[in-house]
Amino acid sequence: MNKYVFGVDLGGTTVKMGLFTEDAILVDKWEIPTDKADNGAKILPDIAASICEKIKEKALERENIIGVGIGVPGPVDTKGVIYKAANLGWDVFNVNDTLSEMLHLPVKAGNDANVAALGEMWKGGGAGYQNLVTVTLGTGVGGGIIIEGNVLAGYNGSGGEIGHIHVEDNEEKVCGCGNKGCLEQYASATGIVYIAKKRLAKDNKPTVLREREEFSAKSVWDAVKAGDEVAIEIAEQFGEYLGKALASIACVVNPEIIVIGGGVSKAGDVLLDYIVKNYKPYVFRGSRETKFALATLGNDAGIYGAARLVIA
Amino acid sequence: MNKYVFGVDLGGTTVKMGLFTEDAILVDKWEIPTDKADNGAKILPDIAASICEKIKEKALERENIIGVGIGVPGPVDTKGVIYKAANLGWDVFNVNDTLSEMLHLPVKAGNDANVAALGEMWKGGGAGYQNLVTVTLGTGVGGGIIIEGNVLAGYNGSGGEIGHIHVEDNEEKVCGCGNKGCLEQYASATGIVYIAKKRLAKDNKPTVLREREEFSAKSVWDAVKAGDEVAIEIAEQFGEYLGKALASIACVVNPEIIVIGGGVSKAGDVLLDYIVKNYKPYVFRGSRETKFALATLGNDAGIYGAARLVIA
Repeated sequence: MNKYVFGVDLGGTTVKMGLFTEDAILVDKWEIPTDKADNGAKILPDIAASICEKIKEKALERENIIGVGIGVPGPVDTKGVIYKAANLGWDVFNVNDTLSEMLHLPVKAGNDANVAALGEMWKGGGAGYQNLVTVTLGTGVGGGIIIEGNVLAGYNGSGGEIGHIHVEDNEEKVCGCGNKGCLEQYASATGIVYIAKKRLAKDNKPTVLREREEFSAKSVWDAVKAGDEVAIEIAEQFGEYLGKALASIACVVNPEIIVIGGGVSKAGDVLLDYIVKNYKPYVFRGSRETKFALATLGNDAGIYGAARLVIA
Repeated sequence: MNKYVFGVDLGGTTVKMGLFTEDAILVDKWEIPTDKADNGAKILPDIAASICEKIKEKALERENIIGVGIGVPGPVDTKGVIYKAANLGWDVFNVNDTLSEMLHLPVKAGNDANVAALGEMWKGGGAGYQNLVTVTLGTGVGGGIIIEGNVLAGYNGSGGEIGHIHVEDNEEKVCGCGNKGCLEQYASATGIVYIAKKRLAKDNKPTVLREREEFSAKSVWDAVKAGDEVAIEIAEQFGEYLGKALASIACVVNPEIIVIGGGVSKAGDVLLDYIVKNYKPYVFRGSRETKFALATLGNDAGIYGAARLVIA
């Protein structure tokens, strides 16, 4: 008899959900809106109701359901306690216990970036590896550290917050976290545009990036691929920030592979080129041969990883 | 009946050994020389012989011996494979299996810096904590990362190599590891003297450090305590390198406590002051309240940690 597991990826606007077999086959995938009314009080009941409905719809036997994993946008410790998720209106409470009481099923919660890392390990760009670091280059820069198959959550759930590694002393702009000079300020989608605008302001060297008033990280990478010299300088700068930060991370956790995902990673292998050439000169020799790969699960990494959370 | 465990700290010149009860009472402590002849072929047989002798001397029953832990000066993976220890003449082999065959006892090996971290967790400055980072400021800069009570060894045993985090772009001198600008070049005992000499060369500002031709890291910290302005500038620079590097590490692993040991740490609390004030502004808020403490086991951290390795 097949065993099943639910994976829930709780975001600020939608909750993505997946039903998986224990060997990582996605059986069904659906979404519900995230209702943030009453400081997010309805979120977990809505999720529980949706899962119960799916159990009924698929006529699943409860003894064949291993449990429910859930990725949450905030710091979560190893016991499932979330330390505030401002984005949802949540304060400090135990997500495992609360959702488990509603569902009468085992529940395991993790930070969304860490959980996405687990997804990439289970079935994505990091499949087959037990020691990996994933980097999500999107609106922000997130990270997930997996050590011998387990998420490194950290003491109070703030493990893998690699977007806030300090990489630039000469920064006047304040990061969303309150510090200045965080990796996220340069390596996120908006960060790349920020680097680009600073570069453009420096002189009048011609580049396709000057042709429009506004451009995106994608425009920068397209220009890099087209051989635009200014865009290439921008990519070098991006690679230097991210490559050096990843080298520091590797000195600490010595991963076998680093998996790069998020919207920015759609630029493809060219992205890895700029990262790797700025990684190798700065890393300890024991991590010099660390592999690099692109994430493959896209927006589904969260539900895969959440499902993987509850599989021992 | 008391259960016993042996802790072995294998160094380049001596092998320190300890016999402990399983509740961390040091029963006996002794040393033998490290015989590096024949590419270190005699080292493990010598250790085995010394342990067997001690078992006889103390009339220990073999069923009351939990096992033997050993800290080794080189990268060791979670299975006990050492990836070369140049210092001993050792190539790649499984230390657990090799020593276990000689002793007919369970053996567990780990990297010496990681093992020392475990010692500080068991009975030292990090006692009572399960998530900690230890930093050893000695001839070099070593590190040990403990996650939920377990050593983070890394994929090929190069976890916790925090002395080789890149912290300075403008460095011409090559580090022992082959890179340039590693933390170890500034935060080790020789690193502090290196920072100091660079500072002294900058101008003629008076300082007690100019009174002798040669001085040590200790001289610098003594001068700091005496209020010497130049020495204080040097301490600031040291604190900036180390504080920022520890902030990066904390963004990755989110420890509850950071324990500072090694010869340099004998300077005492003043050392922590300069580290902490350069740590807080650069770390992610979730790790801002990380505690700092001085290591307390000194040279015994290795035998304590090695013993702790074999206690599940």
